[in-house]
Amino acid sequence: MTGERGRAYELDRSHVFHSWSAQAVLDPITLVTGSGCEVVDEQGRTYLDFSSQMVNLNIGHQHPKVVEAIHAQADLLTTVAPTAASLARGEAAERILAHAPEGITKVFFTNGGADANENAIRMARLHTGRDKVVSFYRSYHGNTGAAIVATGDWRRIPNEYARGHVHVFGPFLYRSEFWASTEAEECERALHHLERVVQAEGPGTIAAFLLETVVGTAGVLVPPPGYLAGVREIADRYGIVLILDEVMAGFGRTGSWLALDQHDVVPDLVTFAKGVNSGYVPVGGVMISAEIAATFDERVFPGGLTYSGHPLAAASIVGTLDAMAEEGVVENAARIGADVLGPGLHDLADRHPLVGEVRGVGVFWALDLVLDRETREPVPTAEVGAMKQALIENGLLPFTAENRIHVVPPCVVTDDEVARALNIYDEVLTAAEERLL
Amino acid sequence: MTGERGRAYELDRSHVFHSWSAQAVLDPITLVTGSGCEVVDEQGRTYLDFSSQMVNLNIGHQHPKVVEAIHAQADLLTTVAPTAASLARGEAAERILAHAPEGITKVFFTNGGADANENAIRMARLHTGRDKVVSFYRSYHGNTGAAIVATGDWRRIPNEYARGHVHVFGPFLYRSEFWASTEAEECERALHHLERVVQAEGPGTIAAFLLETVVGTAGVLVPPPGYLAGVREIADRYGIVLILDEVMAGFGRTGSWLALDQHDVVPDLVTFAKGVNSGYVPVGGVMISAEIAATFDERVFPGGLTYSGHPLAAASIVGTLDAMAEEGVVENAARIGADVLGPGLHDLADRHPLVGEVRGVGVFWALDLVLDRETREPVPTAEVGAMKQALIENGLLPFTAENRIHVVPPCVVTDDEVARALNIYDEVLTAAEERLL
Repeated sequence: MTGERGRAYELDRSHVFHSWSAQAVLDPITLVTGSGCEVVDEQGRTYLDFSSQMVNLNIGHQHPKVVEAIHAQADLLTTVAPTAASLARGEAAERILAHAPEGITKVFFTNGGADANENAIRMARLHTGRDKVVSFYRSYHGNTGAAIVATGDWRRIPNEYARGHVHVFGPFLYRSEFWASTEAEECERALHHLERVVQAEGPGTIAAFLLETVVGTAGVLVPPPGYLAGVREIADRYGIVLILDEVMAGFGRTGSWLALDQHDVVPDLVTFAKGVNSGYVPVGGVMISAEIAATFDERVFPGGLTYSGHPLAAASIVGTLDAMAEEGVVENAARIGADVLGPGLHDLADRHPLVGEVRGVGVFWALDLVLDRETREPVPTAEVGAMKQALIENGLLPFTAENRIHVVPPCVVTDDEVARALNIYDEVLTAAEERLL
Repeated sequence: MTGERGRAYELDRSHVFHSWSAQAVLDPITLVTGSGCEVVDEQGRTYLDFSSQMVNLNIGHQHPKVVEAIHAQADLLTTVAPTAASLARGEAAERILAHAPEGITKVFFTNGGADANENAIRMARLHTGRDKVVSFYRSYHGNTGAAIVATGDWRRIPNEYARGHVHVFGPFLYRSEFWASTEAEECERALHHLERVVQAEGPGTIAAFLLETVVGTAGVLVPPPGYLAGVREIADRYGIVLILDEVMAGFGRTGSWLALDQHDVVPDLVTFAKGVNSGYVPVGGVMISAEIAATFDERVFPGGLTYSGHPLAAASIVGTLDAMAEEGVVENAARIGADVLGPGLHDLADRHPLVGEVRGVGVFWALDLVLDRETREPVPTAEVGAMKQALIENGLLPFTAENRIHVVPPCVVTDDEVARALNIYDEVLTAAEERLL
């Protein structure tokens, strides 16, 4: 097989060490080029990209305006130290802040989502003089030393070498930790749980709540109405900074510019990466409230990195956000979610007993796969792996996690592409049901 | 003043939050374009860039072959998830490993130097089953939760929220911690100190030594002959992984491909960023020995990031390393250091009592500024800040840290540019001496 697959595959298997993997069992496909929702491998095969790579490609592959912005900045000046200023960086901050909630006035740029969360945590700790950070068990916040321990899922366990992180359960009615039977009850009980943990840990020790606005890799968990507003109230009651992690949910994924726009909440800090430039150049950052920014007016902020506000990354942000605004990309994600993809997935669920729950918004959906709709017993991960392989063989690049298929195409996805994808999911679910049920 | 400086400056001051700074006192210059060792601000003023921005610009500004590599990959495919393969990523790994020490067989890509060190620490901890990491008090390893605590300088203090980090003193004869009077004595005593700390901490608890091959921001400290070989012996005696941090020192800065090439040492892991692509696109990584890579053949490596092996970054690495090889950039750095810049700086020191010591190699030098050559009392940081301002006004972008001026031009610097820079340093030192001595 490797003989056919050529130099890229050979070089990869010889020299490249892969993330989150056992190295000996990998068999990656090799991607060569793409356009919009389609991507092409080295054998010339075209796939519908319903993974958006790592749920970062909100504007789709190879958008000409973003590529052009990269070309133009590459011709001018690729790199500038953070100590100097650059027009591209200032314009990127301006474009981002145009979509920020009230009271947010500054941007600190990083290389990605993990160090965005690192620096948001740092700001919260220094602003409050407190140490602990409360986040969800079901969450992912990045792979660095503080960020990985804030993470709730299994990736945290072998990496627990930082202190001061406390985990709570968030609202998730389908697999409720609170014995709730309605969304309102789940919301109320999750808020009660959060406040009880704050009281038990000692409110004066807690610097921040760090929460994904919509929990992403851990299951596409859209918070019930009122939950985030309730979190804000608890934060205010105890002087706790509210950090919303919009690394995956932000910049169009949920059908609004930020996911928080759909909730009645004003955070102190917002972290971002992925969708802000669709990952065309590595970048992330923190949107900062005027109050927290002012903490560091006269006092040195003790964090930084060589590529903070990198001009090439900044130019790609400007190109991306301008193109998204001009072309109604966010509106398309909202329409597709409400009128095409959401209904289509619910229709799949009606016909497939393997689908225990469909949940999501915009172009951010999960199929929660179960062996039994009564017990909600999850489909084993190995079986989901087999379905993943079948989806790829049928021409669709999927995103899977635990017992779930996440349906996360670019925000530019068309009605026709959704229809083609739904057919592929349909076939693969049918085949899996013949095997499993 | 801001009126004259235009939109880039206004946007920066309104919207951009800067690293390692008190925000209210900043007055950044705005950089617009550059070429080789020169960079131009928004008022059209040209500066000799003897900072290499953040000591990352080894190939100089806007090298046409690197810009072309970025253009070509941007036209093809900018972003690919780490789970897939891409030709650019495989070729970047191949190019890097061509310069790696014996036994190093794989590359894990990150977004920069900090997360390179994060992942090297993670590999060492999981490979050994031990927890502690020993690094120098005089060091910088990045700003994330584990990396920042591995850091030795002041930036560590407000960020100490990870455990398991132990700091030792490294060899530094000019400001010896060991009462040594010769380089050989300093070397021997520094090794004795390191081994005593290992024994006192418990050898079975120590996962790794994490050391900059040549300590960078903390003073350009070239280790004495035999020091790193001695560290390797201690590591072997106690089963400790040796990580060499070549983020600043690697890829030409010292006049060899890696700084470790000038020392009789074979590390287990090497971290890199900056010089590998001169920072044209944010990237970093870890070179991994076959033995440590094999630890993760069947066992999942629990670390990763969305932009690991980003194709645009990878293409810029290939373009950079090919151009450096074709154009003899590393050889130029060696020649400049030995024949032009080194002698020129020693000549400055002969004529300026403010210069207590000149030290360095290649295009990696420090002037250790003192008020008194006998007591070696450091020039106060505020005075170095005034000298920095004077250097900028005289048309040179400097790199300063504590009581030092670091002389760190691109590796492509010419004899003529060195001569112009030496004249500027000369003038500014003369003026400072009139004020201070």
